[in-house]
Amino acid sequence: MKIQMESGQNKRQIGRHVKLAGMGRALAGNVMNFDGGTRYRLRTGETLLDLAEEAAEKALAEAGMGMEDVDCIVCAMATPLQAIPCNAALVHERMAKGMHIPAMDINTTCTSFISALDVMSCMIEAGRYGTVLILSGDTASAALNPGQKESYELFSDGAAAGVLVKADPGEASGILYARQCTWSEGAHDTEIRGGGGLLHAFSLTEENRKDYYFDMKGIQILRLCARKLPGFVEDCLREAGVAREEIQAVVPHQASKALDVIMPRLGFKKGTYINRVSAYGNMVSASVPFALCEAIQEGKIRRGDLVLLMGTAAGLTVNFMLLRY
Amino acid sequence: MKIQMESGQNKRQIGRHVKLAGMGRALAGNVMNFDGGTRYRLRTGETLLDLAEEAAEKALAEAGMGMEDVDCIVCAMATPLQAIPCNAALVHERMAKGMHIPAMDINTTCTSFISALDVMSCMIEAGRYGTVLILSGDTASAALNPGQKESYELFSDGAAAGVLVKADPGEASGILYARQCTWSEGAHDTEIRGGGGLLHAFSLTEENRKDYYFDMKGIQILRLCARKLPGFVEDCLREAGVAREEIQAVVPHQASKALDVIMPRLGFKKGTYINRVSAYGNMVSASVPFALCEAIQEGKIRRGDLVLLMGTAAGLTVNFMLLRY
Repeated sequence: MKIQMESGQNKRQIGRHVKLAGMGRALAGNVMNFDGGTRYRLRTGETLLDLAEEAAEKALAEAGMGMEDVDCIVCAMATPLQAIPCNAALVHERMAKGMHIPAMDINTTCTSFISALDVMSCMIEAGRYGTVLILSGDTASAALNPGQKESYELFSDGAAAGVLVKADPGEASGILYARQCTWSEGAHDTEIRGGGGLLHAFSLTEENRKDYYFDMKGIQILRLCARKLPGFVEDCLREAGVAREEIQAVVPHQASKALDVIMPRLGFKKGTYINRVSAYGNMVSASVPFALCEAIQEGKIRRGDLVLLMGTAAGLTVNFMLLRY
Repeated sequence: MKIQMESGQNKRQIGRHVKLAGMGRALAGNVMNFDGGTRYRLRTGETLLDLAEEAAEKALAEAGMGMEDVDCIVCAMATPLQAIPCNAALVHERMAKGMHIPAMDINTTCTSFISALDVMSCMIEAGRYGTVLILSGDTASAALNPGQKESYELFSDGAAAGVLVKADPGEASGILYARQCTWSEGAHDTEIRGGGGLLHAFSLTEENRKDYYFDMKGIQILRLCARKLPGFVEDCLREAGVAREEIQAVVPHQASKALDVIMPRLGFKKGTYINRVSAYGNMVSASVPFALCEAIQEGKIRRGDLVLLMGTAAGLTVNFMLLRY
């Protein structure tokens, strides 16, 4: 609490008059069934770029826009498609080749979409950009360890996208409150150690192969969450001046089936938040925008509703955002 | 030009009253000499995290601050340290373990530091954060191809950091103008194809080994730059309402020795911009903040000076920022 009170964060947050003008989602084509539910994995020849493009085209269509209306392309993804360039440049190549729209990646792992909304709404508020296309999605299937059943059967490959615009003066839409915390005690509870600069692809051997797989220490994550999340959520609600009952929809990151353990502990009863883990599993950065998009399409979230986006991410990072849809 | 005029970008940019309160830099410990100049590469046991921490500690010391004053840790780096979590979470573990400061990555490859200044100055202006620690740096040496002399002898491993704060009302410091463009015609002119979700570490073979090396098509990049940059720079200067003569210091990305070919074509005569390519080579995302930090330390840039940060990045992305230091 000491840091929070002394720091500039959250003390003078202003509302940001932005609106999600359109959203879209896409699933990989290979459907698999496990005990825990249905999962989607990339087919041979299919890449995350295909899914990202499909989701973004749907989002633009819903917004009644084309790429020529977009001022910035943001990839809010947890993992790189290539080591260089950034993911957004590769999406740009697919969707905006020949145009000069800036492309940028924003990454807080599984909550990257929430962070991107947070960041880009400030840029819109500052007049820096008018319309931003945000894409999330990851190739989870590339690094799953068949020997770690808990994670191997959990993930899906999917993508989701949203078009963020300045809201008209008469519209209620906006971001009311956003907060992120990172507790790096959990930095190695969810990780893929290999593949980057610390343990390069060239260092892969039969002996260290497991370092290149996704590795999740479920019990440790739950313990850290149990210690940190209740206080965090209470702080956020108090700072935002919002009661749980005022929130029409809660869209948490679809981390695992432990969602039904964690959310009630945070004061959100079963049935009051969206849980699509059995239908789709964990789609890493795509989970939150995918679930949000689906809820909007199914009429569970309507214009003017107060929506809570929240989630834990590798880091351990946690994001909390109150959005008037 | 059409898109630019129709879009919201840059039309109503407001000045952002922020200040770089402190900067720091660090070089890898293994010094090598090539024809093109001196290069620095990580020693055995040394990692980019060591350099990033050293640079950040210097930046904080110069700002008269400690980690407890920081509201957000941003890694503005081109390449991942691990596939998961994001780089900023790993820096957090080094420097802020036990604290709950949010950690986030922002990536536009070599111009990531400029993009992070652009983004975070909007967040500061919106009241979202007060003090932001931005770190840049990459492990270039991990992916250099000994068979591609042009790039093998060009890169150094280094890091640089800056502390960005809200400027006091009486201070002249601020960001006057920022613009980014991405032309994805150049997406594959500078790249590391392997290591991410499209071509995973597990797919590495003796045959495709070159796909995991840094690959630079120098001539193609120069051609695309020659076609795009002159118009871009003129547009920026005109939109900003600033003449070249008013700028006290130009800090370009230290892309290669071609700097002395490109900059004069953009109207910046040899000697009017900082060129440290022979001293340090290309330090990827660290190049711009490292050169900026050095120029400040050497008294070449003083408080109140109008500074132009600019550079090309894999993408092809180009960033242009006018900063009153």
